[in-house]
Amino acid sequence: MEEACIPSTHASKQCSGKEEKQRDIIEDMKLASGEPEPILASVINHYAQTLIQHNIRNLGRNYYVISYLCLISLHNKLHICIAGYPINQNFNYDALLPLLHFHLNNAGDPFFGNSLSLSSIPFEVFVLDWFANLWDIEKTKYWGYVTTGGTEGNLHGLLVGREQFPDGILYTSQDSHYSIFKIARMYRMKCVKVNSLVSGEIDCVHLKTLLLAHKHNPAIINLNIGTTMKGGIDNLDLVIEVLKECDFTRDRFYIHCDGALSGMMLPFQNGAPKISFKKSIGSVTISGHKFLGCPIPCGVVITRLKYIKKLSRNVEYIASRDITITGSRSGHSPIFLWYALKVKGLIGLQNEVHKCIMLAHYLKNRLRDAGIAAMLNDFSNIVVFERPLDDDFALRWSLACKGNIAHVVVMQHVTIEMLDSFAREYIQKRSIWLKGGEIQPPCIANDIGAENCVCSLHK
Amino acid sequence: MEEACIPSTHASKQCSGKEEKQRDIIEDMKLASGEPEPILASVINHYAQTLIQHNIRNLGRNYYVISYLCLISLHNKLHICIAGYPINQNFNYDALLPLLHFHLNNAGDPFFGNSLSLSSIPFEVFVLDWFANLWDIEKTKYWGYVTTGGTEGNLHGLLVGREQFPDGILYTSQDSHYSIFKIARMYRMKCVKVNSLVSGEIDCVHLKTLLLAHKHNPAIINLNIGTTMKGGIDNLDLVIEVLKECDFTRDRFYIHCDGALSGMMLPFQNGAPKISFKKSIGSVTISGHKFLGCPIPCGVVITRLKYIKKLSRNVEYIASRDITITGSRSGHSPIFLWYALKVKGLIGLQNEVHKCIMLAHYLKNRLRDAGIAAMLNDFSNIVVFERPLDDDFALRWSLACKGNIAHVVVMQHVTIEMLDSFAREYIQKRSIWLKGGEIQPPCIANDIGAENCVCSLHK
Repeated sequence: MEEACIPSTHASKQCSGKEEKQRDIIEDMKLASGEPEPILASVINHYAQTLIQHNIRNLGRNYYVISYLCLISLHNKLHICIAGYPINQNFNYDALLPLLHFHLNNAGDPFFGNSLSLSSIPFEVFVLDWFANLWDIEKTKYWGYVTTGGTEGNLHGLLVGREQFPDGILYTSQDSHYSIFKIARMYRMKCVKVNSLVSGEIDCVHLKTLLLAHKHNPAIINLNIGTTMKGGIDNLDLVIEVLKECDFTRDRFYIHCDGALSGMMLPFQNGAPKISFKKSIGSVTISGHKFLGCPIPCGVVITRLKYIKKLSRNVEYIASRDITITGSRSGHSPIFLWYALKVKGLIGLQNEVHKCIMLAHYLKNRLRDAGIAAMLNDFSNIVVFERPLDDDFALRWSLACKGNIAHVVVMQHVTIEMLDSFAREYIQKRSIWLKGGEIQPPCIANDIGAENCVCSLHK
Repeated sequence: MEEACIPSTHASKQCSGKEEKQRDIIEDMKLASGEPEPILASVINHYAQTLIQHNIRNLGRNYYVISYLCLISLHNKLHICIAGYPINQNFNYDALLPLLHFHLNNAGDPFFGNSLSLSSIPFEVFVLDWFANLWDIEKTKYWGYVTTGGTEGNLHGLLVGREQFPDGILYTSQDSHYSIFKIARMYRMKCVKVNSLVSGEIDCVHLKTLLLAHKHNPAIINLNIGTTMKGGIDNLDLVIEVLKECDFTRDRFYIHCDGALSGMMLPFQNGAPKISFKKSIGSVTISGHKFLGCPIPCGVVITRLKYIKKLSRNVEYIASRDITITGSRSGHSPIFLWYALKVKGLIGLQNEVHKCIMLAHYLKNRLRDAGIAAMLNDFSNIVVFERPLDDDFALRWSLACKGNIAHVVVMQHVTIEMLDSFAREYIQKRSIWLKGGEIQPPCIANDIGAENCVCSLHK
């Protein structure tokens, strides 16, 4: 894992050479009387250059960014390679650059408004209406806002759930994003961890056992659409069925859907599970910087207006109608999202989803054809495979690793050439790590299923 | 109060003509196949134009923004007038525009690092070191991060306090930012509201009574540096003294300082109260977009490393070392802050503080000389005065109003010409509202003190 560069006085931390050098540039400047702007601009250009260089693969020479235009042209031509993170780096918001001259602030409830004249509320409401429509809830019946990212969406959804059911127990699978457990602690909610299936999705048999064991408390259920590591989609319909079987009536449960990445992809795939407010869910959230692509982390949370009305009444005594988690909120984020939705359109989004899914299958097949254990869940763009035995390799390709497995998330900036290049290098290096067959690959059947494993027992 | 423009199907909301028109432009477009970029760019230009027009005062004609360059030149020449909000609109980050082509993500703990290659951790650590130095804490002894704004700073500081003292009671004055009460509810903390003095600062006599009444529980104290409405600075030294008098030893209290705006201004004023980790405080937070100026809401929180170490141990079972509130964090915000600190330097910051304070005194004196009730706290740039009797006037000048009072926050973009223009119009309009003396101005002695009031009883 790459360590961030931090002050040497903070013991136990190490910097890579690149960051050490970068930090020197930043630190060397005297502060008292302010630095000349050209010097600062050169630091920025240098930084932008390292960002590009750090992420260029398979280009036989170094590039030096001399000017802004040069930087842009490099950026457009080359592949910024974040292979292990669900972040779409394929965007261009040049049209929005003029707005960076304003502080835009959508503080508070977007439907209540604020008295700040520099806001982007109409753009935000457009984005919210778009997602409300995507998730089948009428304009008069939903409430939501543009968040600072998936975690804030989860913070909000689970808070709404907890305020509905103050003594509710939070159920979430062991494959859930770490923010869910963090939030349970923050909110002082009792949290029960549910087993996951091999695919990563929640084990509904275990869920049923747990629900029956705590049947006197209402249930607040977090569902992963899908999981961070494997892209497993929790089965919403089955969970609702299980709740019914356990006699949890509609007034005794709340379902929050954490749709970080796949929440934006499922609606564009035929036959995919459907997240919809026509089903018994309470809230849905997605991250804006994941599938849609945005320079700044952001997201969207949508919930039912009736819950918010109740919450508002509850908070009236504090003389605040602000029921968002943060107070001041970026006015730029909604405009980035608005622009992405507009410029892509539904057809453009669908094409992007299909391309990502297709390329994910391509990578999985390439690895499997080379005798490497790999898994790809239905409707997912996350290819899971044997963890590289060389951390430097994982770092160079920005792979996310956990235990014996690693993954590549095939986002829009990932090309077939990049995947070829990655697969070629991985296959070649793996052969060295395994000493040409002398060493057996580890068994990862528990992680990706026996049918996908190639260890001596399962191949 | 200005209402945001929202869908007509959301009953009970109204749009202003301007926003209605703006929303039509946004909504009229068909989405399915994506919109041509030039059309979207023209929407953005139109929006940027309304932002400027909405905020221009005293310019006898309309401006139409045709191009980006034209927009910038207008922005640089004219006064963007947010008079009632503590937001510095006087910034220029053109040097950073190239970085808007990257998604930069400082996910998680800045001192633990993440494996994302597109982060700005070294810039963030520079900013954190800078603030640690400002607040007198050694590099080896602090922890912190760049937040999404003041609320997240409060969310973090109070969480650290609560984890230190799970049965601690939160004390905060009635003039505190609404986020404090919101957070108490989120965290299920018992919250005790302390009276405020006329200046807005916490009433330490009342605090003492309350502490003695709850002496068996540890105390978690939120201090306002300063208050949102009046800029009153809670007296840290006196609060520590009171804690001692009530036998609250150092292991039984935690002080969080909410330094949103003034936290950045006090260190540059001679004789101002000093916020310092050499005193018994646990955390400090400031908003980055307030005094420093930043297009996107952001902030900084600094706390003692020892608390974080304890917190980390506690959260280890969830297999996460992320002890920030949000997960993915903007990599751009730290660079904006870095740039602002660098380009201004300590001397530049001091000059800006002095200018704001001087102009605040100028405005207060102009109002007082015209026989208008007005108050300005020591070391504050917030001028409090009689609420205008015409809401349109308040809206046009983006004044923040509460009860019988309103305020102007004299930020860096506020000029003496703007204040003259405002004072002239206010004095003239007030004379009309009060029918040339026929109607008496309201008594606001309770809000700003009898010595500042000009009602028939106090003048």
